[in-house]
Amino acid sequence: MNRAEIERAAKRYREGRPHFIRRTPLWKLPGAALGVDCREVWLKLEHLQASGSFKARGMLNRLLANEIPASGVIVASGGNAGIATAAAAKALGVKCEVFVPTVSSASKQAKLRELGARLVVTGAVYAEALEACNARQKETGALLTHAYDQPEVVAGAGTVAMEIEEQGGEVPDSVLVSVGGGGLICGIASWFDGRARVVALEPELAPTLYEARRHGKPVDVAVSGVAADSLGAKRIGAIAWEIAQRCVDDALLVDDASIRAAQLWLWTEFKLAVEPAAALGLAALRTGRYRVRADERVCVVLCGANVDPATLA
Amino acid sequence: MNRAEIERAAKRYREGRPHFIRRTPLWKLPGAALGVDCREVWLKLEHLQASGSFKARGMLNRLLANEIPASGVIVASGGNAGIATAAAAKALGVKCEVFVPTVSSASKQAKLRELGARLVVTGAVYAEALEACNARQKETGALLTHAYDQPEVVAGAGTVAMEIEEQGGEVPDSVLVSVGGGGLICGIASWFDGRARVVALEPELAPTLYEARRHGKPVDVAVSGVAADSLGAKRIGAIAWEIAQRCVDDALLVDDASIRAAQLWLWTEFKLAVEPAAALGLAALRTGRYRVRADERVCVVLCGANVDPATLA
Repeated sequence: MNRAEIERAAKRYREGRPHFIRRTPLWKLPGAALGVDCREVWLKLEHLQASGSFKARGMLNRLLANEIPASGVIVASGGNAGIATAAAAKALGVKCEVFVPTVSSASKQAKLRELGARLVVTGAVYAEALEACNARQKETGALLTHAYDQPEVVAGAGTVAMEIEEQGGEVPDSVLVSVGGGGLICGIASWFDGRARVVALEPELAPTLYEARRHGKPVDVAVSGVAADSLGAKRIGAIAWEIAQRCVDDALLVDDASIRAAQLWLWTEFKLAVEPAAALGLAALRTGRYRVRADERVCVVLCGANVDPATLA
Repeated sequence: MNRAEIERAAKRYREGRPHFIRRTPLWKLPGAALGVDCREVWLKLEHLQASGSFKARGMLNRLLANEIPASGVIVASGGNAGIATAAAAKALGVKCEVFVPTVSSASKQAKLRELGARLVVTGAVYAEALEACNARQKETGALLTHAYDQPEVVAGAGTVAMEIEEQGGEVPDSVLVSVGGGGLICGIASWFDGRARVVALEPELAPTLYEARRHGKPVDVAVSGVAADSLGAKRIGAIAWEIAQRCVDDALLVDDASIRAAQLWLWTEFKLAVEPAAALGLAALRTGRYRVRADERVCVVLCGANVDPATLA
């Protein structure tokens, strides 16, 4: 993974399907405007991305970089990766099958159907849906997308960082990124490649990268909590782990109450409607969990907005 | 009203109370990304402004431009003007009294109290609350703010247009602005001063400027409908009428169903949570009520987000 791969992804978007991937706004604010004692906070409003999360970038890159068979694409995910795959497939006019476990919410299932995906609801837990998905893929030969552990997916996520640098006119001092399976942070870290301090934030109840660092290798962790539907990968991706060891500077944990408080604060004070997974950066800044310097320009990636708005009231 | 007045307002923000008024993002998108057949749509994300609407600009300018007595500021409004006055007063550390009629919602009353305002709930309708407010103002000598019909309020609103030009790097071909009492559109029209086509959009059920144009003078109109809480001024402001005759190019009406559909679309497709009043521009573009040219760069001002998020579900 390197900058050339990320630039190739951006080129594919422009040439393969212009207007699908959005150049989301970068909002530079003085730290004081957010009650944070630092020079500038840059909010990357990536929750305004097509499909409601950054995942659209990785999925579209995966689809554009490969030959898509007549059987289309296939994915096991009831969350943002499934929605992004279905949205990218719709934009390209190719078939899409999505496997979700029976526990996945009715609203997410409805969203997937609305995007034209063929939905297969099977298995009590994610692992069972994944198994059924893999069996079906062998049968149909459809192109499989993975939520984070594919090179094209990581490179697509890296275009977020390319935009931050272009829009900011410079490299920020630090970037705070929420981590599930690690695709987003490793795309971002690959782009900055040591030029910015890249900090991973995880819920205490889904400490995938944190535990991998502690054990010196990827390990399975139990996941739960307010952000589990987006950040609840049980194990850091293989690609992400390889990159994270070189390019991620720190991994911090944030408690659920602080995540939820930051999510509500972003709505009441800034009218930014984001999902819990996108609130870890503000939570870390506002609680002091991440110690920011007075002269620091810190970038926070708001990564998704696939949330029931009623939960913000 | 002229550009110098608007520049003075911007200078007051920088010097009087930095970090309160936010430089909200301008999001340039290709028309195709919004399903609109034109070159570019510029979304001015002014719903992310302090207090949740553009009104903070006018109110802070009013407060900074005048001596504030020990009795503080006073306003009659249960809507965005009241919230913006209370927020500006809080930012400056001065007292604030807000008069609202008994029909005003519990959530807006709670918001006003949370901002530290002394709340007076009186009168069955707005006119009665206003009467009580004016009587109280005579008694205390507090500085009165008006939702739209004061020069400082119009000039403050004009800073939205100043930012659009700065951020856009050029003047757009046209600007679509929702109209209640006319403060925002006339601030914007004063800034562009004939350099951009300025188009007023009103709900069919609150056609204040539309009817004034038809009668050749301000007239009282009946107001109701989905956007009445923000755009339900019964009569166009005197300052606004004077400016609108010279600087507003057209006034169009949008039906409630289209407004509501555009509001929901902005949430589901763009994760922008706005109030109905902020959705008229997209409604006019998507229904063809405003006829856009293929080579046009049209700017839409998303003016407020003081909405119960549960209504977006």
